[in-house]
Amino acid sequence: MVIVMSTSATEAEIQGVVSKIEECRFQVHRSTGVTRTVLGAIGKTDDFDLRRIEILPGVESVTRIGEPFKLASRSFHKDDTVIELGGVRIGGDSIVVMAGPCAVESRDQIRQIAAIVAEAGARVLRGGAFKPRSSPYSFQGLGLEGLKYLREAGDAEGLLVVTEVMEASQIEPILEYADILQVGARNMQNFSLLRRLGEVRKPILLKRGISATIEEWLMSAEYIMAGGNYQVILCERGIRTFERLTRNTLDISAIPVVKKLSHLPIIVDPSHAVGIRDKVIPVARAAVAVGSDGLLVEVHTDPEKALSDGPQSLYPEGFRLLMDSVRRIAPVVGKRLT
Amino acid sequence: MVIVMSTSATEAEIQGVVSKIEECRFQVHRSTGVTRTVLGAIGKTDDFDLRRIEILPGVESVTRIGEPFKLASRSFHKDDTVIELGGVRIGGDSIVVMAGPCAVESRDQIRQIAAIVAEAGARVLRGGAFKPRSSPYSFQGLGLEGLKYLREAGDAEGLLVVTEVMEASQIEPILEYADILQVGARNMQNFSLLRRLGEVRKPILLKRGISATIEEWLMSAEYIMAGGNYQVILCERGIRTFERLTRNTLDISAIPVVKKLSHLPIIVDPSHAVGIRDKVIPVARAAVAVGSDGLLVEVHTDPEKALSDGPQSLYPEGFRLLMDSVRRIAPVVGKRLT
Amino acid sequence: MVIVMSTSATEAEIQGVVSKIEECRFQVHRSTGVTRTVLGAIGKTDDFDLRRIEILPGVESVTRIGEPFKLASRSFHKDDTVIELGGVRIGGDSIVVMAGPCAVESRDQIRQIAAIVAEAGARVLRGGAFKPRSSPYSFQGLGLEGLKYLREAGDAEGLLVVTEVMEASQIEPILEYADILQVGARNMQNFSLLRRLGEVRKPILLKRGISATIEEWLMSAEYIMAGGNYQVILCERGIRTFERLTRNTLDISAIPVVKKLSHLPIIVDPSHAVGIRDKVIPVARAAVAVGSDGLLVEVHTDPEKALSDGPQSLYPEGFRLLMDSVRRIAPVVGKRLT
Amino acid sequence: MVIVMSTSATEAEIQGVVSKIEECRFQVHRSTGVTRTVLGAIGKTDDFDLRRIEILPGVESVTRIGEPFKLASRSFHKDDTVIELGGVRIGGDSIVVMAGPCAVESRDQIRQIAAIVAEAGARVLRGGAFKPRSSPYSFQGLGLEGLKYLREAGDAEGLLVVTEVMEASQIEPILEYADILQVGARNMQNFSLLRRLGEVRKPILLKRGISATIEEWLMSAEYIMAGGNYQVILCERGIRTFERLTRNTLDISAIPVVKKLSHLPIIVDPSHAVGIRDKVIPVARAAVAVGSDGLLVEVHTDPEKALSDGPQSLYPEGFRLLMDSVRRIAPVVGKRLT
Repeated sequence: MVIVMSTSATEAEIQGVVSKIEECRFQVHRSTGVTRTVLGAIGKTDDFDLRRIEILPGVESVTRIGEPFKLASRSFHKDDTVIELGGVRIGGDSIVVMAGPCAVESRDQIRQIAAIVAEAGARVLRGGAFKPRSSPYSFQGLGLEGLKYLREAGDAEGLLVVTEVMEASQIEPILEYADILQVGARNMQNFSLLRRLGEVRKPILLKRGISATIEEWLMSAEYIMAGGNYQVILCERGIRTFERLTRNTLDISAIPVVKKLSHLPIIVDPSHAVGIRDKVIPVARAAVAVGSDGLLVEVHTDPEKALSDGPQSLYPEGFRLLMDSVRRIAPVVGKRLT
Repeated sequence: MVIVMSTSATEAEIQGVVSKIEECRFQVHRSTGVTRTVLGAIGKTDDFDLRRIEILPGVESVTRIGEPFKLASRSFHKDDTVIELGGVRIGGDSIVVMAGPCAVESRDQIRQIAAIVAEAGARVLRGGAFKPRSSPYSFQGLGLEGLKYLREAGDAEGLLVVTEVMEASQIEPILEYADILQVGARNMQNFSLLRRLGEVRKPILLKRGISATIEEWLMSAEYIMAGGNYQVILCERGIRTFERLTRNTLDISAIPVVKKLSHLPIIVDPSHAVGIRDKVIPVARAAVAVGSDGLLVEVHTDPEKALSDGPQSLYPEGFRLLMDSVRRIAPVVGKRLT
Repeated sequence: MVIVMSTSATEAEIQGVVSKIEECRFQVHRSTGVTRTVLGAIGKTDDFDLRRIEILPGVESVTRIGEPFKLASRSFHKDDTVIELGGVRIGGDSIVVMAGPCAVESRDQIRQIAAIVAEAGARVLRGGAFKPRSSPYSFQGLGLEGLKYLREAGDAEGLLVVTEVMEASQIEPILEYADILQVGARNMQNFSLLRRLGEVRKPILLKRGISATIEEWLMSAEYIMAGGNYQVILCERGIRTFERLTRNTLDISAIPVVKKLSHLPIIVDPSHAVGIRDKVIPVARAAVAVGSDGLLVEVHTDPEKALSDGPQSLYPEGFRLLMDSVRRIAPVVGKRLT
Repeated sequence: MVIVMSTSATEAEIQGVVSKIEECRFQVHRSTGVTRTVLGAIGKTDDFDLRRIEILPGVESVTRIGEPFKLASRSFHKDDTVIELGGVRIGGDSIVVMAGPCAVESRDQIRQIAAIVAEAGARVLRGGAFKPRSSPYSFQGLGLEGLKYLREAGDAEGLLVVTEVMEASQIEPILEYADILQVGARNMQNFSLLRRLGEVRKPILLKRGISATIEEWLMSAEYIMAGGNYQVILCERGIRTFERLTRNTLDISAIPVVKKLSHLPIIVDPSHAVGIRDKVIPVARAAVAVGSDGLLVEVHTDPEKALSDGPQSLYPEGFRLLMDSVRRIAPVVGKRLT
């Protein structure tokens, strides 16, 4: 923590701040310049509310030293975390493609889509059984039945399976059927849920909240990791801005930023970011070119009739075209499809 | 739903859209102008994904008719909802002040603060027992013990009690001790939780999510109301913008906007909006002047030592000063303290 | 400037940073802690690009000490700047109301409105002669003719006159007719224009840019002041956020934030902030309650027929109602109408 | 324009709206449904302020039909605009790379950088002579002298030249020395300047404003085109969001969105978007992969000593690496370097 005193701070004010800092068990370093004094406070600040110092008389500004997260930080763990799961590698120089419908709608639907995405090169099947819908009057998912169909379809095609968990009571059944548990954007700061997922021993796919800073997102990863579950996969899916012509604004530079700050794998969900089919492929290509570790894409054989998010789902031929692009762009960034 | 066809749409494309709309069970009205055709689709659209039409060939834009929420809407319920609770009126021409510490820290602390805020004119005591903290390493609240202290302090001073519920498993104990259940900003779209609160028969104080639009916020209220619990109190607490000198940006105009769209009471939390003590009073005055139905304010007798959010808590004398301002501004907007 | 070295920085990296800082003519203070080193660099940093240090090996973060603005800062000038102009006081404990139509449309129109706003208590007449319109096909103002009508109307009613300047070539004619020159939100960072306005000796009303931080806004004030013109009046008029139900989001807490950082007067434009008439009065009341030094309000006798911004203009009776509220709220914040 | 009446609108209110619309010279189509009435108003709405109808009694919402821009719209001009300039093609299936320092600092500096970028494959040399700086105390560019050095360096290497124009008085000298005139983000809505650039007969590179919507950006292009200058090149350079770890947030999906709405070429400036060197190459690759028509990149031989924006400038070897990536990714999206 670095405390900058204002130019008009009195010696008594400076002493007041020094005492307060020492009282909070920091070691103080004082630099007295011509026009002002700067205090360095060395110690554990992760959990310290900087505003406690900010409001003392004579203080101009207070700045935290170091990131508030530890286990998620690259300074804690230098090398890329690579999650290995049934022959699929997530992170490092691999690109993983997770694909499937927004929601599991029927046994046939998910079987059919699974076959298509597997054939085109996806390694993980996505599909929602419990759906967070912004309207209480919308289709809320097939629940347990959906989980079974999803697992069955994944097994039939040799695909891993990822699905969303919305609340604690769903963890157990989902653990039984899925390989990766997804935390949706709206639950990124559902700390109760994160805490419980820290006790799980399967990978967690953690979507970025719609207005979360990268730092907050990594703090949510920290929540899971602090419980002992180090297998966290980050997923950028667009943030909210003033622009209205896309559903969200994909923060493409978040990928290199996260790569520098953290060792965790990071993938991109272009479908939710843009919200409309004809922008999905260009943006997915950009995600590969920027160096992300994979894609999470919505694919549907009959998007017109999809019960959820049909308009942003790719048709099978669109998905094949995308996979072809992925294969061609990956080597430019030193990566290859897992 | 109004569908605007592009100027170059062919008759076949127009017919395709008409068929699709009818298939979705809407009644179609067609207006053919000189340069383009406009289609009106009358029917239940709450749950209809507009993008299903948006992606059809020849379509330029699709606009929903009417708000996606019903029970929360003023067109559904013309008069202000007034919640009466043990002699305290929330909504209508009343202003209610809810005050107390961010977190219940000890039996003494909450008793002492309760006495001060009651004496100054507050009618509801706030205090967190279960705390959502962005760091897993921070103080997480006293839990059940905190709830008991809160209730005890409220009873001693004749105050109602409001506290935050973070997950389903906390509902039952909180119902036992609190009069109003608060849903925090980060849980505004925790639909599982909202659904369960719809089954509760005590008022819910629903904070606006940090990047929620007003429409989404009212949809979350709708979730609770759809379950049969019509006692929802909205609470504006600042939204996230690019401005860094305040913790959040209080959306002051949200109050008149909500008042027009909805019949539900709306209060303001100036403490979380600005995040630092010296801005709380000016902004709280603005909240009263703009016509809000009340305030939710953090007050602490020893903010320097508070375990959470001390720097944004008012001192007792600050709170008394604020109450004096509330009393003076209220009549200008035709209101009075409950 | 405070430089925090990463925990893994080598001694050579630390020395490299020290050399670089000294080369840039700063005085260095070094604090070596258990886990990391912090460097304080004392000297003139206003114009120094922090990223020059940020990219050096071993550096974790760099933070500026002090604000980048000087003349606009309260640490440079402790007392409120009060601008006195023909008996009207702007700043300090005064509240000034500036009112009038968005655009001067005709001699009669501006005369009629001037009479109404003067009678209700406004002291400054607003009206655009050169209009910045987002469409090239919209009404662009009456130009020089509009300026003359505005002056004439102001003189007839004993009102000062404020109007917008959009480019350098307009400065001279506007100086001839107006008392205060307004810089619109879109020109807040038109540095060429600001520089020229620094040479002017009449007050400048500087609107906040639609996505400007408060710091950038004060830097734009600094541009004008650096040229020797210290009479700058700031005007908050709403910032752009994701919320779509209001034209902009009025940043109400900007007023106390600016009051703390700067000595310059700050007023609020509720009309552009909310963009629709029925929200103007509540938000204007909030602006007075939060402590602003005045209002800039659009008033029109026939808003239905206004050539620009009619829907956000108050009717005369609305304006009178607002003035009544201003008179009643002002004393609560220790102010009175000038 | 489509007007949706509220469910409680009376017949008199509906008639009032119909009369008003007709008075404004629109042709009205009325659709009367079971619960509400929808009115379609056909006519020229580009310049019509929708709020004039929005505030009438009984109106729930008003929606514009069609885009507010015409000349910039793809419905007006189906094929991609390709600008041909001395053998360089901008738009269509070409990718153009514009590179050079932020500011022209000396004759030698610009000559040296020009040689490097030309050799690596750039076709246009960038370099600022008039610099918009957020601090009045920063380096403001070499002015006319800088223009001469830039032209000379471009000619020596067979490069076209692009430079920024900040105000009307600079247009003439810049026209003498440059091939393309750049409008900076802060001037995107400097309508006086845009109007004058409409009279110019050289291409204008129009950067997106920091908080401009895509629609507003295209309206600014319309301003230039309305004056008869159809050679507008759009440049996405990042928008302002709440994320603080990058200077701006590059809106990568803006490229496919613009491609659909408009026929104008669109390029990307990764340097200003991310603001720090090590993120420039990944983001530039993404820009090519998403389908942009080119890049505008800052390159410097000695970024440590650059007078402006050194930390975001690529070293020569970084630029060569980037050009290699561009050549490899371009064919995946059906493009090639011009």
